[in-house]
Amino acid sequence: MKLPSRYRDLVRPEVEEMKGYHVPAVTAKIRLDANELPYDLPFRLRAQLAAELQRVPLNRYPEMNPAALKKSILKRYRAPKDTRVVLGNGSDELIGLVLDTFAGASRSKPRILIPQPTFSMFGIIARSHGYDVVSVETDEEFDLDMADAARAIVRQPVNAVFLAMPNNPTGNCFDPDTVKWLLEDSGAIVVVDEAYGDFADSSWVDRLSRYPNLIVMKTLSKVGFATARFGMALCSEGVAERLERVRLPYNIGGMNLKIAELAFRNAKAIDANVSKVISERDRLYAALRRYKSLTVYPSEANFILVRLLGEDPVTLWDSLRRRGILIRNLSRPGRLDGCLRITVGTPAENTALLKALEALLD
Amino acid sequence: MKLPSRYRDLVRPEVEEMKGYHVPAVTAKIRLDANELPYDLPFRLRAQLAAELQRVPLNRYPEMNPAALKKSILKRYRAPKDTRVVLGNGSDELIGLVLDTFAGASRSKPRILIPQPTFSMFGIIARSHGYDVVSVETDEEFDLDMADAARAIVRQPVNAVFLAMPNNPTGNCFDPDTVKWLLEDSGAIVVVDEAYGDFADSSWVDRLSRYPNLIVMKTLSKVGFATARFGMALCSEGVAERLERVRLPYNIGGMNLKIAELAFRNAKAIDANVSKVISERDRLYAALRRYKSLTVYPSEANFILVRLLGEDPVTLWDSLRRRGILIRNLSRPGRLDGCLRITVGTPAENTALLKALEALLD
Repeated sequence: MKLPSRYRDLVRPEVEEMKGYHVPAVTAKIRLDANELPYDLPFRLRAQLAAELQRVPLNRYPEMNPAALKKSILKRYRAPKDTRVVLGNGSDELIGLVLDTFAGASRSKPRILIPQPTFSMFGIIARSHGYDVVSVETDEEFDLDMADAARAIVRQPVNAVFLAMPNNPTGNCFDPDTVKWLLEDSGAIVVVDEAYGDFADSSWVDRLSRYPNLIVMKTLSKVGFATARFGMALCSEGVAERLERVRLPYNIGGMNLKIAELAFRNAKAIDANVSKVISERDRLYAALRRYKSLTVYPSEANFILVRLLGEDPVTLWDSLRRRGILIRNLSRPGRLDGCLRITVGTPAENTALLKALEALLD
Repeated sequence: MKLPSRYRDLVRPEVEEMKGYHVPAVTAKIRLDANELPYDLPFRLRAQLAAELQRVPLNRYPEMNPAALKKSILKRYRAPKDTRVVLGNGSDELIGLVLDTFAGASRSKPRILIPQPTFSMFGIIARSHGYDVVSVETDEEFDLDMADAARAIVRQPVNAVFLAMPNNPTGNCFDPDTVKWLLEDSGAIVVVDEAYGDFADSSWVDRLSRYPNLIVMKTLSKVGFATARFGMALCSEGVAERLERVRLPYNIGGMNLKIAELAFRNAKAIDANVSKVISERDRLYAALRRYKSLTVYPSEANFILVRLLGEDPVTLWDSLRRRGILIRNLSRPGRLDGCLRITVGTPAENTALLKALEALLD
């Protein structure tokens, strides 16, 4: 049944225009498309997890405020004293939570500032929550220029700035001076999304003691636990207290809580996997750089963005797919023209990719 | 760190005033406070579930559109042909999803209509999503009068109406003629939340073929799977398509999907538990009615609302708590003055409650 016009008029205009977030349902033997860690837990830990999941009472609501888990999260990320953490059903939920909480300031519509290109969900979620999106184009190296950001904010003050650090899909971190300027002078809530922070050299967590408007987001999705949808917002007490008013009380299922507990109890196993990915990323980067037909962008994340020069990226994407290797085609007119994103896989997967590229590229 | 005023000004005014959803962290041996099913899965099914959870790859994102599961959901609830289902991380998430999607109609602020009293999250989520809440007082039997609803809507047209059927915390279903009038003449999206529908005699699911503006919400939380946070919105294609644009793509974690699959594969086991609860509810109802100091409200849900006459409900609540029995104190000035809500437990738990009441009430 179609929606009659009297009800269609009730749809938020941004939603009526929207297409939603679509990922083509293509599968492959080697999946280098979704920035997942290529390893499941070692057998010993999976067995431990199984025993713990088995003890969760299915019929009871999950714990609303898992204090011990929160403590280990803050310890793991070396958060400054008095930092708080708010939990989300994935970082996606936290994005909406921040936007709902800070939608005030009596503008006709609240506004978010994001660099372009960046993680597409920032814009999608913002629009579906009634925000206007102010975009700032990044430069040739995908960096965010301070003067550009300042100009945009002076013209249109914003409620929140969302910065993925490292940025997705580009892999770089933005100039720290620009971020610092935004924290000190934008008048906005600044969210630094460190979804890929485990693979990067730096973090903004230690700045939480200085900036009451800073929120650092973390996730378990890129370090081996994507199925558990476990996102975290580290922030000041003043921010956390307000986010908690909007957070749905049972937003983290009981099984997901157990998985997170296990993850934070076994930080060393996670670190070992992260190190493997970083060293494979560096090997992949060096190998990809040998192709004249590719511009390869430096990455502090678990993926590498490449731009294919003078050839059709869809043809390359499809040739790889027919060889059982799935990467992400991001090519569209503008800054990402000709761009493909490759998630770092296991050593064998990366070698298979490089072998396939050898047959396909000059 | 407190939030400095320049950032406090960014907080949505409703959120700045809000207290959030608080459930006191009291525990007890017999928990009759949260409307949970009192039974976990039988051992055989828990063992099956364990094997399935063990096969979920932790490092991969969960399935975005579980088509087979959706099919069994529609079958289970006998949905008319062409009904769609949208999945939520609990019904709570679906409430926000509906509100975000239908926040249009170019009013300065969108509006929701809810009866009073009802499930408190309707109002909390509405406010945190920028809605004005229009409340309609229910009558002496907690029913919703058609004329009252009509008057409220004529004065202030609303985007959405939320009706819990059976209503929480009162246990009754609203007059079907009022609901029908709202569906046909309110001009709004009408959400019938059947969170407790498994324990009731009737459902609005079969009306989905007639009303494109009807959304029927279901959940697994009350029938044994509260830990999995699995909510469902059954609706027309036109509504589903728009809700899907706003839904976060990976909102149901992989473990929760497996639990839901198991639940819908074992509908008979669920039905058996539901029948046990219904027959215990009826026993409890008859037994409670014997007390002159209690007004006991008829219930089509898995809980019973009682009003304590001439005594302090907090004293009774606390006396039960000291005996290891936790019920929910809902007493506040107005329609719920003196009211307590008792979730139906196992036969032994209900007997323990009745024994305790015998010692405490006249």
